[in-house]
Amino acid sequence: MNIRVGVIGTGIMGADHVTTLHRQISGAAVSMVADVDLARAQGIGDGIAGARAMADGFALIADPEVDAVVIASHDSTHAGLAVAAVRAGKPVLCEKPLAPTVAECLHVVRAELDAIGPGGSPLVSLGFMRRFDPGYVQLKAALDAGEGGAPLLLHCISRGVGSAPGASNESSVTGSAINEFDALPRLLGSPIVEVSWHAPRCSSEAIGLQDPQLLLLRTADGALSTVEVFLNARYGYDVRCEIVCETGTLALTEPLRMVRDSARQRAIEYPADWRPRFADAYRLELQAWIDGITGGQPSADMASALDGLVAGAVAEAVIRSMRDGGRTVAVELPSIVATAF
Amino acid sequence: MNIRVGVIGTGIMGADHVTTLHRQISGAAVSMVADVDLARAQGIGDGIAGARAMADGFALIADPEVDAVVIASHDSTHAGLAVAAVRAGKPVLCEKPLAPTVAECLHVVRAELDAIGPGGSPLVSLGFMRRFDPGYVQLKAALDAGEGGAPLLLHCISRGVGSAPGASNESSVTGSAINEFDALPRLLGSPIVEVSWHAPRCSSEAIGLQDPQLLLLRTADGALSTVEVFLNARYGYDVRCEIVCETGTLALTEPLRMVRDSARQRAIEYPADWRPRFADAYRLELQAWIDGITGGQPSADMASALDGLVAGAVAEAVIRSMRDGGRTVAVELPSIVATAF
Amino acid sequence: MNIRVGVIGTGIMGADHVTTLHRQISGAAVSMVADVDLARAQGIGDGIAGARAMADGFALIADPEVDAVVIASHDSTHAGLAVAAVRAGKPVLCEKPLAPTVAECLHVVRAELDAIGPGGSPLVSLGFMRRFDPGYVQLKAALDAGEGGAPLLLHCISRGVGSAPGASNESSVTGSAINEFDALPRLLGSPIVEVSWHAPRCSSEAIGLQDPQLLLLRTADGALSTVEVFLNARYGYDVRCEIVCETGTLALTEPLRMVRDSARQRAIEYPADWRPRFADAYRLELQAWIDGITGGQPSADMASALDGLVAGAVAEAVIRSMRDGGRTVAVELPSIVATAF
Amino acid sequence: MNIRVGVIGTGIMGADHVTTLHRQISGAAVSMVADVDLARAQGIGDGIAGARAMADGFALIADPEVDAVVIASHDSTHAGLAVAAVRAGKPVLCEKPLAPTVAECLHVVRAELDAIGPGGSPLVSLGFMRRFDPGYVQLKAALDAGEGGAPLLLHCISRGVGSAPGASNESSVTGSAINEFDALPRLLGSPIVEVSWHAPRCSSEAIGLQDPQLLLLRTADGALSTVEVFLNARYGYDVRCEIVCETGTLALTEPLRMVRDSARQRAIEYPADWRPRFADAYRLELQAWIDGITGGQPSADMASALDGLVAGAVAEAVIRSMRDGGRTVAVELPSIVATAF
Repeated sequence: MNIRVGVIGTGIMGADHVTTLHRQISGAAVSMVADVDLARAQGIGDGIAGARAMADGFALIADPEVDAVVIASHDSTHAGLAVAAVRAGKPVLCEKPLAPTVAECLHVVRAELDAIGPGGSPLVSLGFMRRFDPGYVQLKAALDAGEGGAPLLLHCISRGVGSAPGASNESSVTGSAINEFDALPRLLGSPIVEVSWHAPRCSSEAIGLQDPQLLLLRTADGALSTVEVFLNARYGYDVRCEIVCETGTLALTEPLRMVRDSARQRAIEYPADWRPRFADAYRLELQAWIDGITGGQPSADMASALDGLVAGAVAEAVIRSMRDGGRTVAVELPSIVATAF
Repeated sequence: MNIRVGVIGTGIMGADHVTTLHRQISGAAVSMVADVDLARAQGIGDGIAGARAMADGFALIADPEVDAVVIASHDSTHAGLAVAAVRAGKPVLCEKPLAPTVAECLHVVRAELDAIGPGGSPLVSLGFMRRFDPGYVQLKAALDAGEGGAPLLLHCISRGVGSAPGASNESSVTGSAINEFDALPRLLGSPIVEVSWHAPRCSSEAIGLQDPQLLLLRTADGALSTVEVFLNARYGYDVRCEIVCETGTLALTEPLRMVRDSARQRAIEYPADWRPRFADAYRLELQAWIDGITGGQPSADMASALDGLVAGAVAEAVIRSMRDGGRTVAVELPSIVATAF
Repeated sequence: MNIRVGVIGTGIMGADHVTTLHRQISGAAVSMVADVDLARAQGIGDGIAGARAMADGFALIADPEVDAVVIASHDSTHAGLAVAAVRAGKPVLCEKPLAPTVAECLHVVRAELDAIGPGGSPLVSLGFMRRFDPGYVQLKAALDAGEGGAPLLLHCISRGVGSAPGASNESSVTGSAINEFDALPRLLGSPIVEVSWHAPRCSSEAIGLQDPQLLLLRTADGALSTVEVFLNARYGYDVRCEIVCETGTLALTEPLRMVRDSARQRAIEYPADWRPRFADAYRLELQAWIDGITGGQPSADMASALDGLVAGAVAEAVIRSMRDGGRTVAVELPSIVATAF
Repeated sequence: MNIRVGVIGTGIMGADHVTTLHRQISGAAVSMVADVDLARAQGIGDGIAGARAMADGFALIADPEVDAVVIASHDSTHAGLAVAAVRAGKPVLCEKPLAPTVAECLHVVRAELDAIGPGGSPLVSLGFMRRFDPGYVQLKAALDAGEGGAPLLLHCISRGVGSAPGASNESSVTGSAINEFDALPRLLGSPIVEVSWHAPRCSSEAIGLQDPQLLLLRTADGALSTVEVFLNARYGYDVRCEIVCETGTLALTEPLRMVRDSARQRAIEYPADWRPRFADAYRLELQAWIDGITGGQPSADMASALDGLVAGAVAEAVIRSMRDGGRTVAVELPSIVATAF
């Protein structure tokens, strides 16, 4: 009676999803894993009783032993695989971004609409996991309860230890900052309408990209957000968000468990990457996804293909600002956003 | 293929376990719930597809649709139900304490030994959930890695908002402080050998018991622990532990996610009871228990009936000190502790 | 042998300086106080043995019983009084800003230069007290020691409970943000060269001005600073600064002394205004000023009239950006900055 | 018109007092320094215009250019010098302890009483500087305001990097823990009546003494205090105090100014000794002392010889417990405490 899940992509993120689905999620079983590096897929699959490994993600999608699909392969493959999944009528949880370009995002949205018809139940879920992070959930609950009055200004920070090989100015936006493009409008209940991109002095530790980057994002409610994205911050993985409201502020804390006194210091530890920081979020996201499949109704908290398209449109506006000297750029949403659903 | 779990006792703790097992645990299904208050059991059972409710815990244990049992009923019933479960050959996770007296704990240990025979795989797991709390797990890992050198002194605090009706000096020890009697020796790798009980000025908020209480516990390694138990601390549920080692200290932090600025204050929130604080611990404990049953081998981290007996012996020594003017009392372990396993 | 100090302006800041000079500063005595509201001056002066009160600041400057002058009257009076003091050959500590406009600042700088001649020892000190705040001093020491590598990005916040009557968009800049215009270049060792002004959604608590304001400041080293100025933040007085460097960050902490657990919260208290936050800074500044007079050599840490002029030029650039839709504006320094000293 | 102060003892503490008096205190001038190591006294005195150095503390006390005396020499010399000062009719600020034994403390108290007569204004002030520490002052103000209801339990910690050469079990009590013997009764407004001494496992870093030590102190109001004294804690100088009241707690925070992110850690720094931690307290204490002399009335916050005697009596009770297996020992106050003043 468990949902049989096939996972495409067994890199860091995919392997993490396989382990979580296998060990911590109620109602799911990993039945298949796929990776262009077959040996890697087999290495992961060997740890799961009854799971098969293959190289071809499209074959995985088509396999009758797969009820639902997780896409955790390279960003450039997301759109094609997502389209295949919806055409196969299978629920799919796609890692963010939905695709690196608005055109590809649009392609997925249209394919899903074709597959499910008007008013049909969505098949595509998008892995904007911050929606399930207990910290963001608490921030949103407090804002929704009107704590502090209207939000005016947000200060957001996303820092990591080092950028992935091949990272570029653009991939910082489409791959990292994009988390903020979904999280902030959702916290505020207001879409991003205007953006600008700014380059501080570049770190000598960053190779091949401007790092850090600073974004200003304005939402339709007039609130302004500063977003620092710093992929090579070196000291640790660190995500922050402070929301400045009319009579108070709300902010995330570092969710750590232990403090040490030693060598003239009182210290808490930062994780080396995002997995420990967002382990709860990934687990709760996967559980909500499985529960949504079992119950026949996606979780209201889960991001949709349309959310992915909207975030992609913000990313494109930011990249236009980047290429145009930091000019303020309006976000243009495809007309389907207003009309499709 | 899921383990079918019967839960006895559907009060606060039992209801929490039912929800966790049903919604968050991989490989388990709640098949039955029992409570002396049948209506309460039915209320809980109605939320779980395929689960039946009954009034009699012993009947639940005997039912063929129950593969494994959780005991979360009144402390006074633990021993009898645990014995029934082991005689039925079913794995059982019993909430702490194993029983309020050493004699009853001993009864369970012996019954289990009779049931499984020498070298048999244990059936009884005991719900000392701090063993699964990520904070305690990190403290223990750091100590095991030798961080800070030898532990010398521990400062432990267990505070709650209000004591349960009928709470007494003794139940503070057997029901609350007992968590420390299992956690501290496990952190230190050394048993508690000597205890004394001390009464500070009693809070006017506490009815019918000395509150707070202060315990001094000495482990065989010579380390000394101060333990404050304050059930009516009013301000919130708050558990702390600092371990003072030769060159540094290790301590738990409040695992909170959001901080607020408002009304001249920067503040984090305390929970009103233990469930939010130990939600991760309960989930991880239940998952480890189910994994142990599925894998045919209890988790090495899980407390056993013998651990419950040892903690019970410490509790009895503390109560002797309480009744004898705070005198230092040696912990006497039943001989079966040394010989049985 | 004490330096006899005359204090002009006995409002909140001036009264605070009188008390500090009288009670906590070695080598100084308050001999005279002046305020346009004579009764207020008398109220303050009555508490100081041997001090006289008068209404006219210029008469105070001229009085033979005044060796040195503190100016803490309305911003609009600073320049005129400072010029009178330097023409009288008396050391003067002027509260920031030196003056609300560059033209007036320039007037003071030129008057001082005329009075002391080329290479003469400066007479004007400017009350940029953050230079003496132990937190900023530690930040600067760490940066100067190369901790974390090159600074790339700064996040600065200045929040208060409520704006003064008559506060405007411009006075937010010339009266509050100006502290950052002196502090940031000093921390970085690099002047501000480019600024832009941004308006988030305005708080309904703010009357008569855009509040909060967000500034972007670029220094000659390429570092970018975000500066939030929020005069009606309501919750408390709160100043923050985080410096993001290549391999780590440095940030101020709230310098508070006590934490409370109560009513489900762990909380620290914010002050209602800037005086408690910067009490140490004011005391250390005044002591350094007196020591400089006694020793015949102003403290190297003390801001000069020229520093006031430079900060004023940044303020004017920000105001130009404010009036021109947030356009990026270059800071124009009067030629005297490069040539005078 | 400045008070001319002579400082006896120019070790770490005495040198610190000289600098503070000379540079930061209003109304005082250091006119003389004395040390058995004359060269050391001269080294210190050379930095102070108009100050003379000598070897003999008694000669310093007798000198007509000394209006008031600070005693910061070895603990064993305190009593003799204090007696000489009161016989010379000069105000004296003696570093704690007043003396290592109750008998000597009593000798000072009696000499002062003889010198000033019944109802006379006290000459001896005792350097229990925590009374002037802003953190303790805030704790006391909150308690006095009834915050949290009655105090029930206190947790106090005094840790240092390393013990002084020659430190012993007894000197840990008379030289370090004695700060708590004055601070706790003052916070609570209730004297210590009963004590016990406990030895945790001894640190291998400690040579020649039991370290850490744990004390239990009961005050007349019934509150119980745990006091950890750990002179060789290695990681830093760290003083903590948490007061557990009926509905909340009050605790000191680390009064630090800067936080660093680096190398996977967020860290604040501990000082290497007590001077940075209590710099404010020493400055405020010296200023209050000078103000008291100038005003003819000692500060109500300042500890007296009698306070030193009372703290000494607690220290003797603790040492009796130490020598008697940790037995609970009642504090015996000399009859003069009840009758003298």
